[in-house]
Amino acid sequence: MKQAEIRSDIAWATPTKVVVHGLDLCEDIVGKIDFGQMAFLQLFARLPEARELRMFNAMMVILVEHGITPSSLATRMTYAGAPEAVQAAVAAGLLGLGSVFVGSLDNAARLLQTSLANGDHEPDIERLAREAVDDYRARKEILPGIGHPFHKPIDPRAPALFSVAKELGYEGRYVRLMSAIGKEAERQLDRALPVNVTGAMAAVASEMGIPWQICRGLAVAARAVGLVGHVLEEMRQPLATALYLRTEHEASAHLIPKEHEEPV
Amino acid sequence: MKQAEIRSDIAWATPTKVVVHGLDLCEDIVGKIDFGQMAFLQLFARLPEARELRMFNAMMVILVEHGITPSSLATRMTYAGAPEAVQAAVAAGLLGLGSVFVGSLDNAARLLQTSLANGDHEPDIERLAREAVDDYRARKEILPGIGHPFHKPIDPRAPALFSVAKELGYEGRYVRLMSAIGKEAERQLDRALPVNVTGAMAAVASEMGIPWQICRGLAVAARAVGLVGHVLEEMRQPLATALYLRTEHEASAHLIPKEHEEPV
Amino acid sequence: MKQAEIRSDIAWATPTKVVVHGLDLCEDIVGKIDFGQMAFLQLFARLPEARELRMFNAMMVILVEHGITPSSLATRMTYAGAPEAVQAAVAAGLLGLGSVFVGSLDNAARLLQTSLANGDHEPDIERLAREAVDDYRARKEILPGIGHPFHKPIDPRAPALFSVAKELGYEGRYVRLMSAIGKEAERQLDRALPVNVTGAMAAVASEMGIPWQICRGLAVAARAVGLVGHVLEEMRQPLATALYLRTEHEASAHLIPKEHEEPV
Amino acid sequence: MKQAEIRSDIAWATPTKVVVHGLDLCEDIVGKIDFGQMAFLQLFARLPEARELRMFNAMMVILVEHGITPSSLATRMTYAGAPEAVQAAVAAGLLGLGSVFVGSLDNAARLLQTSLANGDHEPDIERLAREAVDDYRARKEILPGIGHPFHKPIDPRAPALFSVAKELGYEGRYVRLMSAIGKEAERQLDRALPVNVTGAMAAVASEMGIPWQICRGLAVAARAVGLVGHVLEEMRQPLATALYLRTEHEASAHLIPKEHEEPV
Repeated sequence: MKQAEIRSDIAWATPTKVVVHGLDLCEDIVGKIDFGQMAFLQLFARLPEARELRMFNAMMVILVEHGITPSSLATRMTYAGAPEAVQAAVAAGLLGLGSVFVGSLDNAARLLQTSLANGDHEPDIERLAREAVDDYRARKEILPGIGHPFHKPIDPRAPALFSVAKELGYEGRYVRLMSAIGKEAERQLDRALPVNVTGAMAAVASEMGIPWQICRGLAVAARAVGLVGHVLEEMRQPLATALYLRTEHEASAHLIPKEHEEPV
Repeated sequence: MKQAEIRSDIAWATPTKVVVHGLDLCEDIVGKIDFGQMAFLQLFARLPEARELRMFNAMMVILVEHGITPSSLATRMTYAGAPEAVQAAVAAGLLGLGSVFVGSLDNAARLLQTSLANGDHEPDIERLAREAVDDYRARKEILPGIGHPFHKPIDPRAPALFSVAKELGYEGRYVRLMSAIGKEAERQLDRALPVNVTGAMAAVASEMGIPWQICRGLAVAARAVGLVGHVLEEMRQPLATALYLRTEHEASAHLIPKEHEEPV
Repeated sequence: MKQAEIRSDIAWATPTKVVVHGLDLCEDIVGKIDFGQMAFLQLFARLPEARELRMFNAMMVILVEHGITPSSLATRMTYAGAPEAVQAAVAAGLLGLGSVFVGSLDNAARLLQTSLANGDHEPDIERLAREAVDDYRARKEILPGIGHPFHKPIDPRAPALFSVAKELGYEGRYVRLMSAIGKEAERQLDRALPVNVTGAMAAVASEMGIPWQICRGLAVAARAVGLVGHVLEEMRQPLATALYLRTEHEASAHLIPKEHEEPV
Repeated sequence: MKQAEIRSDIAWATPTKVVVHGLDLCEDIVGKIDFGQMAFLQLFARLPEARELRMFNAMMVILVEHGITPSSLATRMTYAGAPEAVQAAVAAGLLGLGSVFVGSLDNAARLLQTSLANGDHEPDIERLAREAVDDYRARKEILPGIGHPFHKPIDPRAPALFSVAKELGYEGRYVRLMSAIGKEAERQLDRALPVNVTGAMAAVASEMGIPWQICRGLAVAARAVGLVGHVLEEMRQPLATALYLRTEHEASAHLIPKEHEEPV
């Protein structure tokens, strides 16, 4: 049986040398490039230019930490049961980065990149926004990248990211389309739906030429760093055990027959 | 029932503001600090000084990518089965960062930090090294941080990291102890056992005041970035399906009775 | 702030009693019901009738073990790195049970349950099959539940499961629809596309009244048992390290410049 | 380079046949053996005898469901973020089955199997119990398998399991040693420390000849089934989102400056 080729172009090593994406680890990387550059190198197989690096850093730092979320709680619960396996606690937290929380980033980037796929130099942004909103409403799907249940009237992270993008020259047609989609949705639905942090990141990533399929990967990489922070806090100042005990008590109280209730 | 307090000091948010470790995300973080600084902030609850940041970056970039490993193969196998769940593929790869591969980092840092725990200003490094080697040999445990099955005669990443440490003034008693342990082991066991990358990182992390319990977390955070790179390559240039098919064939061939063998 | 109710109806306990789905663990479960009944109880919140149990067992035993797959390889790779965390090895293998391998089971069950959703007592099976095939072909999606790349001309597990279903009286309109879809696809595409094990399980699960949303859960539960078997074999007779070392060698060989090649 | 052999003895398949642990899946397994027998077959590579099967079932049913635990909460939190990836939710819950919750099962079984390793036909159970308790106290480690923080004065699952063991003839020297350890600990520490469910399972598993290294695997396999039940309840009657929102609120309240507090 002829075997299919198995190859990877990321790294190679000899006993005296390690090369990653064409750079010598010991000569060109250690002490020479920083963690943000290394992350960019690993994801895009080349080093970033200066403005790319600043834009990439701005996106990554937003994604690191989102407080107490289902994800950080899964990490802390796992640490409580398996403190010897820090890697498992971080992995457990990553597993919830799916359609509900991080998926909207890919969805927003896909929407923008699909809408502008034909490479038109002077796209009719208003028309594309209208088509996008019509299309999502027709399919009864939630438009990604606009509105926020908590950050009202506006998600402050969106203008913060757009401001960096403007300074660095990343404020092109994807940013304009994202904003136009927000405005069109507000017009059709008659309520405030400004671009949120997800929409801003999707627009900026698209400006940088990052395919939408990769966006979730950015979020996962950054959040892994954040989840390690939750493990460290759980080591020093645990909350998981107290939380599960009181939740167990509350969740099953209605099931316990009167005669089995414990005196307080 | 009085409830135990549940608190986290990492982040807080109002509808118009997000604060992480005391810094305003939109004013002090986005566009102001880079991914390495953010990782340091998340792990140590403060921003690094300039030389700390350079040292931290030098450690993190080493940890990102280690080529085709059990970990990156687990990631790629998982992606092959669940391409819609990139987060699960990264998580699967993290799960193998246990005692065999990354555990030696914590172990080496624990050895160093325990040996030098009494805060002696002029520790007898040679004596401590001798005690450490004697102790591990007595318990028939492998000394962490020295020797390497592939990188011979010396793991090139160790001197590369020590060189940055020297330049930045992180070459103190932990680095000396690690080197002395290598030398003592060579003397007792009569073969080359120079400090490897794990030993070098453990020593440098100890110089920076990073508790050994946290070292695995650094590795997990950095490797998550690396595993996203493997997912992206698997998207473009898959190897998992070819590898599992040929492995299945090879692994079960001896079980198949002659009369059931397929004609080629 | 009024708090949303948090409740779970699965279990409750007092210091002297544990109750699961209304059954006393110590009096009604331990020594009284078997693992298959317990799995059914946990998934459906009631004990099965005799014929339900036999049908459920027949489905579960098929799902346990599928040999060397991406899933069992992820488990073995993870065990090689973290042998102290058996739970992580099993979890890693579960993570790849996504759209490619197990997703087709939900998809097939959804197709059947959606097609027959109107509760028509005398449904026109041939028309529904034609509509299903037309619909999938129009959307250029792969029809789930029919054909198999390896098990040809027919997946032997499908008739084996249908035979049990017939004996137990679970051979109704879902089984007929699944078979009709296979025949219609064969007619339209002019190649053999008999019902495969996934299609058979989807049909039988539908006959039993199991919602399609739950089918992946059945597979995950059964496969977890199977993956523990792979951990146990990897303990006694490891293959992961040999496999990753040779894969690393093969995958990166093309990157190594001639002058860095090692003499064999 | 000569390649290491890669082989697995679990299963093989041809286009028309699937064989698992030597049994033909379609002829000998489907419709013939039940889920408990299949689990036993997969873990021990042979079918159980009748009394083995009953004992195995009794252990497995105890391990399936433990109510709201850190593990089931990690599953539910993950489902809330990634409802499209049921496998990831189950995996997240498994990850916490580490040293704190399930590790005590391996530890107890190891203690028993090590104590009785010399195969003495008439072991001095009282002396072995005394040595075990002395040894753990000297190392300041918690004795596994005795006492329970909630199930007082006695964990009702232990006598329930022992009762089945007695009926089936599995009440030998491991069961006696476990009980003797509880009594000795009570004597030395002067408080009630009866054998708990973990100790009972460890003793019974040892009677069955199950190596302690495998015990965590039994627990992981059974709990996977239980966690699928939590996913199903979370689908119908979610609690994760309410729980995380209130936890986020409570955990960060102390950080929010007065001037940023929201009016209720």
